[in-house]
Amino acid sequence: MEISLRDIEKASARLKPILHHTELDLSSTFSAMTGGQIYLKCENRQKTGSFKIRGASNKIAAMVEAGERHPVVASSAGNHAQGVAYAAKMFGIPATIVMPEAAPIAKVQATEGYGARVVLEGSCYDDAYAAARRICQEEGAEFIHPYNDPDVIAGQGTLGLEILQDLPYVDIIIVPAGGGGLLAGVASAVKLINPRVQVYGVQAEKADAIARSFKEKKLVTTESASTIADGIAVKFPGDLAVDIINQKADGVVTVSEREIANAILLLMERCKQIVEPAGATPLAAVLSGKIDVKDKRVVCVMSGGNVDVGFLQGIIERGLVARHRRLKFVATLVDRPGSLVGLLNVLADARANVLSVQHDQLVARLNPDQTTVHVVCDVGGEAHGQEVIRRLIEHGVEVSIES
Amino acid sequence: MEISLRDIEKASARLKPILHHTELDLSSTFSAMTGGQIYLKCENRQKTGSFKIRGASNKIAAMVEAGERHPVVASSAGNHAQGVAYAAKMFGIPATIVMPEAAPIAKVQATEGYGARVVLEGSCYDDAYAAARRICQEEGAEFIHPYNDPDVIAGQGTLGLEILQDLPYVDIIIVPAGGGGLLAGVASAVKLINPRVQVYGVQAEKADAIARSFKEKKLVTTESASTIADGIAVKFPGDLAVDIINQKADGVVTVSEREIANAILLLMERCKQIVEPAGATPLAAVLSGKIDVKDKRVVCVMSGGNVDVGFLQGIIERGLVARHRRLKFVATLVDRPGSLVGLLNVLADARANVLSVQHDQLVARLNPDQTTVHVVCDVGGEAHGQEVIRRLIEHGVEVSIES
Repeated sequence: MEISLRDIEKASARLKPILHHTELDLSSTFSAMTGGQIYLKCENRQKTGSFKIRGASNKIAAMVEAGERHPVVASSAGNHAQGVAYAAKMFGIPATIVMPEAAPIAKVQATEGYGARVVLEGSCYDDAYAAARRICQEEGAEFIHPYNDPDVIAGQGTLGLEILQDLPYVDIIIVPAGGGGLLAGVASAVKLINPRVQVYGVQAEKADAIARSFKEKKLVTTESASTIADGIAVKFPGDLAVDIINQKADGVVTVSEREIANAILLLMERCKQIVEPAGATPLAAVLSGKIDVKDKRVVCVMSGGNVDVGFLQGIIERGLVARHRRLKFVATLVDRPGSLVGLLNVLADARANVLSVQHDQLVARLNPDQTTVHVVCDVGGEAHGQEVIRRLIEHGVEVSIES
Repeated sequence: MEISLRDIEKASARLKPILHHTELDLSSTFSAMTGGQIYLKCENRQKTGSFKIRGASNKIAAMVEAGERHPVVASSAGNHAQGVAYAAKMFGIPATIVMPEAAPIAKVQATEGYGARVVLEGSCYDDAYAAARRICQEEGAEFIHPYNDPDVIAGQGTLGLEILQDLPYVDIIIVPAGGGGLLAGVASAVKLINPRVQVYGVQAEKADAIARSFKEKKLVTTESASTIADGIAVKFPGDLAVDIINQKADGVVTVSEREIANAILLLMERCKQIVEPAGATPLAAVLSGKIDVKDKRVVCVMSGGNVDVGFLQGIIERGLVARHRRLKFVATLVDRPGSLVGLLNVLADARANVLSVQHDQLVARLNPDQTTVHVVCDVGGEAHGQEVIRRLIEHGVEVSIES
């Protein structure tokens, strides 16, 4: 199947009055780091905090134009839920969102806040999906698929159009890929308008169904999809989307969890922006050299910013450890008076900033002449961390690094 | 003393080619929350991550115009350090920044990254200041004061000018106040151009020298300045700045640590922006009702974004607890088999998301028939947290809330 330029244009006209044309920022930091000209498309500051509102709004607008005003139903605990809820509200259409029972309370409240009815059912996404389909039948409602729908794909494609408007001389556009709707939409729009521009998708290494599908030129599903990038943790990509991607995209690459965490952290530190894990994958691909950007004008789409700040605490932790800025280790000391003070003196002399020191009583009890201490400290980087460890070992401390 | 419109104009002409004219964003979230029209001035995304570069650049540009090309020296472990380092580099002037010995490694590296020499000396800011003055004498260098200098104040004033350019019908401009340079500069620019526009300063409750000075219409210093908003933790505001503020500002209000933490968290969650504690104080003042913004067009200046992500972890923690989204408590249980499982069952039934459970052996040992458990869990808000506690008490658990 194919999305036409007419479909994208129509979507663009529908969305223009109701959504943000989000900013495209040149990042001097990431340009200097990579030798390319790196622009960030700030879709994390789109209404509802993600691009998903584009597809959902286009789908519902198309329904309304066709004279259909059925209620709509979606199953999602993420950005699609909020996109459908918000879009339905704009068009005055009742929306029901089905989420698994374990959905985070914050997501339930955010979705209800946009005026949707939230139904909690089942223990996983598949159960919620089945319940959503059942509700559609019972109530004569229309199911809004998160990615495998031509109107949704055309809606996501408007993002590509905006990039070409703002930066006509762009060379490479990089977007996250999970179900495939965004990549299919952007690749459709961009290749129809300017086939010179390259379009890449990025997946998490452990949720790589589209990368595999692209390689094998057929729809491939995966048994699991385990990544911190929950927005693109998809086992079954859409067949419509994959079909388009396999024809139009220039490549689909994967990034590791550490690369994602590092990109999130850099975006916070250097650009003062909050981006959800999926939205950080394009920058992760660029910084890890998975896509060659030297001397190119490159747009990394930061697709969303909806990350629970509690979860962000963990991401910061991972990122700091991955970047050797935070050192966590277990020190085994001879259990005699002054040994803990000795350890802390070594750390102070080495200018390590100690965050926590935890004495492990259970281990200490098993080895009566030894004592075990868990230490977390901040250091200046890898070389400084190694120096700290070297000094501890010199001091006679047995050190085991935790990560 | 007075800053003239000519001073501000000159500063603006000097800074225009080298600094960002930062974005002014209308926030629908904060507008809805307050009944005003709330705009955010994104100075957190200024070069070097803060407004301080404005004053430093204007000072150094003025020196260079006057034919002086002495090296420059500053004492700061914060935004002023990076501002001076960056500005000096732009004008090809050697810079030395003196920081206290305990300055965070990241700040030292960032400042060195801008090409400045960093000297670590003394145990507090006063020692570093003395060292900086000494280096100036020894090396014939020019000391760049962070706020008590007419050129620095005029440089900060350009921020007010930009706001009036972008939003001529603004009613109220709110800026953080520490040493007073930004408030004095913005008040000077704005009142000269449009006296109808109100200008407010915001301080932390426990670092309120300017608020007191404004009240008493004379320079007041404080014995301590203890706040998470390190950028405005100033005991001795500038006499030049205070003089201008006392003449021109419409008010100086204070906000609590909790209000600051809450504002930082909301900016992360709703606007996907990282703002340092000082930069969140204007929004904190608006959200806590310290400044009446109903039906007004209001600009909150987010003055900087340089916050260590490790520190941000703690801010998130405080913010979540303050907003009743994270519940921390000590549960005292009768020590019998199954009592811990019982506690966890109550939490699961109440849909509290348990983050950590820690058994306190020492306390348990003191009271052999009781066991004590520290619990951290995420809840949906105050009402949900109370419901969780109520169910635990019903279950016979003694609960003591931690904050």
